[in-house]
Amino acid sequence: MTKIAVFGAGSWGTAFSLVLADAGNDVMLWGRRDEVVEAVNERRENTDYLPGIELPPSISASTDAEQVAAGADVVVLTVPSQSLRDNLTEWAPILPGDATIVSLMKGVELGSLMRMSEVIHEVADASPDRIAVVSGPNLAREIARREPAASVVACTDEERATQLQAITHGPSFRPYTSLDVLGCEIGGAYKNVVGLAVGMAVGLGFGDNTTASVITRGLAETARLATAQGANPLTLMGLAGLGDLVATCSSPLSRNRTFGERLGQGMTTEEIYASTRQVAEGAKSCKSLLALAEREGVDAPIAHHVDAVVDGRMTAQDMMSSFIARDTKPELH
Amino acid sequence: MTKIAVFGAGSWGTAFSLVLADAGNDVMLWGRRDEVVEAVNERRENTDYLPGIELPPSISASTDAEQVAAGADVVVLTVPSQSLRDNLTEWAPILPGDATIVSLMKGVELGSLMRMSEVIHEVADASPDRIAVVSGPNLAREIARREPAASVVACTDEERATQLQAITHGPSFRPYTSLDVLGCEIGGAYKNVVGLAVGMAVGLGFGDNTTASVITRGLAETARLATAQGANPLTLMGLAGLGDLVATCSSPLSRNRTFGERLGQGMTTEEIYASTRQVAEGAKSCKSLLALAEREGVDAPIAHHVDAVVDGRMTAQDMMSSFIARDTKPELH
Repeated sequence: MTKIAVFGAGSWGTAFSLVLADAGNDVMLWGRRDEVVEAVNERRENTDYLPGIELPPSISASTDAEQVAAGADVVVLTVPSQSLRDNLTEWAPILPGDATIVSLMKGVELGSLMRMSEVIHEVADASPDRIAVVSGPNLAREIARREPAASVVACTDEERATQLQAITHGPSFRPYTSLDVLGCEIGGAYKNVVGLAVGMAVGLGFGDNTTASVITRGLAETARLATAQGANPLTLMGLAGLGDLVATCSSPLSRNRTFGERLGQGMTTEEIYASTRQVAEGAKSCKSLLALAEREGVDAPIAHHVDAVVDGRMTAQDMMSSFIARDTKPELH
Repeated sequence: MTKIAVFGAGSWGTAFSLVLADAGNDVMLWGRRDEVVEAVNERRENTDYLPGIELPPSISASTDAEQVAAGADVVVLTVPSQSLRDNLTEWAPILPGDATIVSLMKGVELGSLMRMSEVIHEVADASPDRIAVVSGPNLAREIARREPAASVVACTDEERATQLQAITHGPSFRPYTSLDVLGCEIGGAYKNVVGLAVGMAVGLGFGDNTTASVITRGLAETARLATAQGANPLTLMGLAGLGDLVATCSSPLSRNRTFGERLGQGMTTEEIYASTRQVAEGAKSCKSLLALAEREGVDAPIAHHVDAVVDGRMTAQDMMSSFIARDTKPELH
């Protein structure tokens, strides 16, 4: 039985623990807060982040990172992307030396402009062939309900990707292997930004023609940035690109889409933060992705506009007008 | 002022006439039924197919094809795809010799396996550089409400594509030119089949992870068939591929998705036909697209399964199980 440490007991960390438990693994979940850990161990439920879903006995939880990490074959990291560096600095010394380190995080670090796997490489001093990502159309609540879902498990080391596939494959979760860690990570981070833009269109009252156009142009923008850095363009057309993007943009459960809807309805970022506990990853990632696009010399109009709306320098209404009312031209350059 | 003949007064033909009228053209609409033509001319509304939308005086209608075609600079065809050959055989002698012929139709002819532009080429004896297609995320009702939308106008003759762009570009309709008629047509026809599959998943009660996976795999299948025949893969990633597909699959207004939902709920094709007036293009196109895929030696699991469900040889439930429960493998071959 493979022993897996999952660092982060939010909704996706908990739902992914269920995937791992369903596939026959022994999972230990690290949580920051006593209440969450106690609820998992005693009530068999993550009442805060995944209420109503029963957790099997093969999932236990602890606030003690050392206890969670001890003897783990695989270490899964799922903390807010801007907190990864601080958290991992603390955990790095206690992680087993040859464990595969799996990132479920979707973001680019502000300042360093590093993807999550790059932060892991630097902070945990882990070679890239030990670092994997899992990404796809995987809304946590649907995964937790065992609705059928597919996903990509990517690692530059094919053998490790195949091992990860074997330990995640279960009756309702279908993992595909990939070597393209970069493409999966850019796709995952960018979809949060495009999700914000789609949410804005919905909040402004636009319909499916408009949101489909934003999704199409958003995926093209994502693919431009990813391929400029060396990703395989087909990764962006796959589950970790198009699939993840469409699921996020379709779902009323998506935080980024919901955050965008509120911006579209005229609320400011401060007002949204004040009225909800949830953080929209895309509201931070748009800054780092925009900086990354500038560094790579890639045109990124959606990230540019989303950043301006998030910062209050432009209204969502003006963003959509500016997005639509440009000169006509050929679709492909 | 450009004079445009639109053959077909269904919801898309009427909404596209509005696009043309908004862009400053003079439009004459051909309809088969007296009631529809009278409603357009006298009540300024297509009460049957686009109720509640006021039509401007620059749109008139007639049941007399000769009157509609006379002096037209552009001829737009929007009849059911399996009826095009019969209709056009009748109209071909009266079409102005140099008019651009624009197809709004999305299907592949049963038997001949011809795309709509190929049927036009053959029946109207028009050279391919006179034949154009318009395709994108363009749900008729949203277009008629003047919600912002983008689309692709494709013609192998770049100059004609640019002319068509100029006469369709209006305040809420943004056309992009393309030379890839083939890619647009395969994208348009296949999206109806994928829309049926997505509808089935919805009808079975699955959520956004599942539908996003079906969309992703459906677009890959579409791109395989289109590129095998020489289309530009980027066309399928654009508005006439991904964009049209996502709009169709997101919208409760889409006939194909709705038809698929009913199949997913356990109704048979005959029961659905009996209880609704609407025809789902995809229920016919899946046969011709499947035959086309076989001819081109391309793997087409979604068309294959949808065809089996439409014919009653497989339940939607079994289709989704078969779709999900296969061996794990790499995402890209």
